[in-house]
Amino acid sequence: MSSYDFVVIGSGPAGRRAAIQAAKLKKSVLVIDDRGSVGGVSVHTGTIPSKTLRESVLNLTGWRERQFYNRRSTDNPQTNCAALNSRLSKTLLHEVDILEQQFARNNVHTLQGRATFVDKNTLRVERREADRTAVELVTAERVLVTVGTKPFRPDNIPFNNRTVLDSDAIVSDLTIPKSLTVIGAGVIGIEYATIFSALDVPVTLVEPRDSFLDFVDREVISNFTQQLLDRGMSIRLGCSAESIVLDENDWPVVTLSDGRVVRSEMLLFAAGRKGATDDLGLENLSLEADHRGRLEVNPKTMQTKVDNIYAAGDVIGFPSLASTSMEQGRIAACHAFNAPMPDAPHHFPYGIYAVPEISTIGYSEEEAKAKGLLFECGVARLRETSRGHIMGLQSGILKCLFELKTGKLLGVHVVGEGATELVHVGQAVLNLGGGIDFFMENTFNYPTLAEAYKIAALDAWNRMAHERSGKVIKLKKRKVGKKAA
Amino acid sequence: MSSYDFVVIGSGPAGRRAAIQAAKLKKSVLVIDDRGSVGGVSVHTGTIPSKTLRESVLNLTGWRERQFYNRRSTDNPQTNCAALNSRLSKTLLHEVDILEQQFARNNVHTLQGRATFVDKNTLRVERREADRTAVELVTAERVLVTVGTKPFRPDNIPFNNRTVLDSDAIVSDLTIPKSLTVIGAGVIGIEYATIFSALDVPVTLVEPRDSFLDFVDREVISNFTQQLLDRGMSIRLGCSAESIVLDENDWPVVTLSDGRVVRSEMLLFAAGRKGATDDLGLENLSLEADHRGRLEVNPKTMQTKVDNIYAAGDVIGFPSLASTSMEQGRIAACHAFNAPMPDAPHHFPYGIYAVPEISTIGYSEEEAKAKGLLFECGVARLRETSRGHIMGLQSGILKCLFELKTGKLLGVHVVGEGATELVHVGQAVLNLGGGIDFFMENTFNYPTLAEAYKIAALDAWNRMAHERSGKVIKLKKRKVGKKAA
Repeated sequence: MSSYDFVVIGSGPAGRRAAIQAAKLKKSVLVIDDRGSVGGVSVHTGTIPSKTLRESVLNLTGWRERQFYNRRSTDNPQTNCAALNSRLSKTLLHEVDILEQQFARNNVHTLQGRATFVDKNTLRVERREADRTAVELVTAERVLVTVGTKPFRPDNIPFNNRTVLDSDAIVSDLTIPKSLTVIGAGVIGIEYATIFSALDVPVTLVEPRDSFLDFVDREVISNFTQQLLDRGMSIRLGCSAESIVLDENDWPVVTLSDGRVVRSEMLLFAAGRKGATDDLGLENLSLEADHRGRLEVNPKTMQTKVDNIYAAGDVIGFPSLASTSMEQGRIAACHAFNAPMPDAPHHFPYGIYAVPEISTIGYSEEEAKAKGLLFECGVARLRETSRGHIMGLQSGILKCLFELKTGKLLGVHVVGEGATELVHVGQAVLNLGGGIDFFMENTFNYPTLAEAYKIAALDAWNRMAHERSGKVIKLKKRKVGKKAA
Repeated sequence: MSSYDFVVIGSGPAGRRAAIQAAKLKKSVLVIDDRGSVGGVSVHTGTIPSKTLRESVLNLTGWRERQFYNRRSTDNPQTNCAALNSRLSKTLLHEVDILEQQFARNNVHTLQGRATFVDKNTLRVERREADRTAVELVTAERVLVTVGTKPFRPDNIPFNNRTVLDSDAIVSDLTIPKSLTVIGAGVIGIEYATIFSALDVPVTLVEPRDSFLDFVDREVISNFTQQLLDRGMSIRLGCSAESIVLDENDWPVVTLSDGRVVRSEMLLFAAGRKGATDDLGLENLSLEADHRGRLEVNPKTMQTKVDNIYAAGDVIGFPSLASTSMEQGRIAACHAFNAPMPDAPHHFPYGIYAVPEISTIGYSEEEAKAKGLLFECGVARLRETSRGHIMGLQSGILKCLFELKTGKLLGVHVVGEGATELVHVGQAVLNLGGGIDFFMENTFNYPTLAEAYKIAALDAWNRMAHERSGKVIKLKKRKVGKKAA
């Protein structure tokens, strides 16, 4: 029986980061994953595939320069599944390779198989080998559960992995349908709906709630929604799927709660995922997952109720971002081995890799209001920047919130090309305590999209004019004129 | 005779910004430009055209995804001059339009014609109208000279605007030659040489000095040079053009100082530009331009030796960036009308829109050494980021310098796709006094190129290990492990 200081179940972003952190603390580390290769959902069916697909689709369809050439996806013979799938597998293999090297370099052991808790320090690992099942017992001082999630698959959905798919199946062998229905306007549903729409596939998006992506500023979502409607996407909010059946051609037919019927060649069911905790043997630990398979942890330490067992990543629920999962993994490993903990998390960004991208950090206008903060907003349209013209951008906005009294930046919200990169400038200003002064005083490269920050700051500054004259706000050495350009 | 508080000669970035600033200060403002439309060299033959051309070339050749599809520019029938020229004129018209609207909205008057100083408060404006020359006198309390530059055209170069061109002529009616020689490895020469090279045109770059872009970190330039050599560009440093003649087909033939001969279908002479001050009537002001037509100013106020006459932008020389020119224009207008001045400039970024882009802010390694600073460097290869994999990036680095004692960021230097945008994250950290802690503690969107900052910071952190153990450096709560991932 092999014995380790730290056993990590799952090798997605949280597991990977935790394993390497523990290894750097000179602990013996084993990562168990029941996939044939490391990387977790993130590498194999989640983050990386959907982002690679997104990038491929934009490249192959000439999406970014569509404004100039009126090109449609079908004009380009290379826009076909073979090209998309080939790029996908190329990128995935590369990611797995990097990850394996990183584990090897840091002396992290890996074991393929399904792990089940025997007790809080012992795991049973089962591995299928040709015609037999190999079983191994592993003991661990501390264990981290980063098993991630799997799609939530209700019994009444006629999944067939061809015309009715979940979000794992859709990238496993990508095909481009004549039309697509997406059930669920969460991050995953939105990402795939907009990617297929960029391929000129008519898409219907169905969501039972009256709104979506509620953690994002409403003005940004409104701009985003308008872009989707402009390109002909059909968005059915406040509308649930009452029944889904297959017609004689195996095309899914959805009857909505408002009586309307949607028929398409393919249907993606993306109404949630559940923690992959079913087979963990939690019952042997007196630990219990919630109804969606999620584990509860102390958010400061990532400990479950069993003090040597930690959990991190998607299996503990919101926000379920690769970036935050990595931080959680690092926090877990540091706490497990009594290493000084990283600082409490500052504001961190959310990135939604839809077409167009959305990214956000800090308070939305709604949150700022709810907290009773006094603030002003500034909005820049990306097409107002020279880089925006050059790129032919028609839409997309960058919105900043500034505190009235101090001018400090409270939040940044971006929708449009490059949003997930652009938000980091705001992140630096936000987390370093900067404000409207920074954007007014600094010169940005010309032409860049980052100039949108300056435009948004000037816009907010104009709106703040009467507060300034009423001396509510004092900004350093800033009294030049009533309005700015 | 019309009379204004502020007359601006030239409507490029410096003039534009100054005019609007003065208008906001409730001054009467006139902008004189001898082009048919506003915008200056920046819009018409400089910044915007070359950046638009760059973006078009990358789009049309599939440059960014070349790694995946082995596509060459000639595979795409749309890579032709008509497509490039059409996009160019579309973007330029749009820029001019925006600018004219901005002037109109701010009540800035414009006048087309060539301005000459009669005395320090009077300008003679000459305008060609069909068959006659109209002359108008204008008086001004303060004048700003933002006439920009024009190409430096030595007499012994056989310019013909077809096969031997300067940097203004090359975009006026773009053609794609079978081969190109570029004389001069300044920013303009480098930008065009690399853009044509991205179109699979064989390019020879000739530069008399042994190095180029000396204000950029050498490690970044070395990486950049390697990329150019890898794709077959011929770079001849320490080598001047002894003679340039046209052969029987009008192809330029260059004899270099080392005896070698370079023949190509087209030659771009980009060995400098000179201030467009020849016709200003400086002699009527007892003002004198230097041998390259440049005016000297007090860098704090932008005043020339004649106290009501200011100059800004390319006409005052280095750095000749659209972004810094705008700031200079604003400073001039504020000083001219006694408005509170913007803060002294912090570090500002340089952007070189070559293929690949280069951008830099703060100290280079060479500058930091020369200043006797104690520092450590961290380098990330962009392909080490997941976004880099997804985009298929093969090359490009991001380099950060951190002060040893404080961990403060001293400089950021990037070469690769998106460099001009990416540098602004570093700019925020640098100008807000942040350091290595910021990058270690913050979570970035995954996948993004911005993760390169984290990788570079971890790399520097590793190198700083022995300084830490020797207590030279104390970083907040950071003692976790000897190395990072």
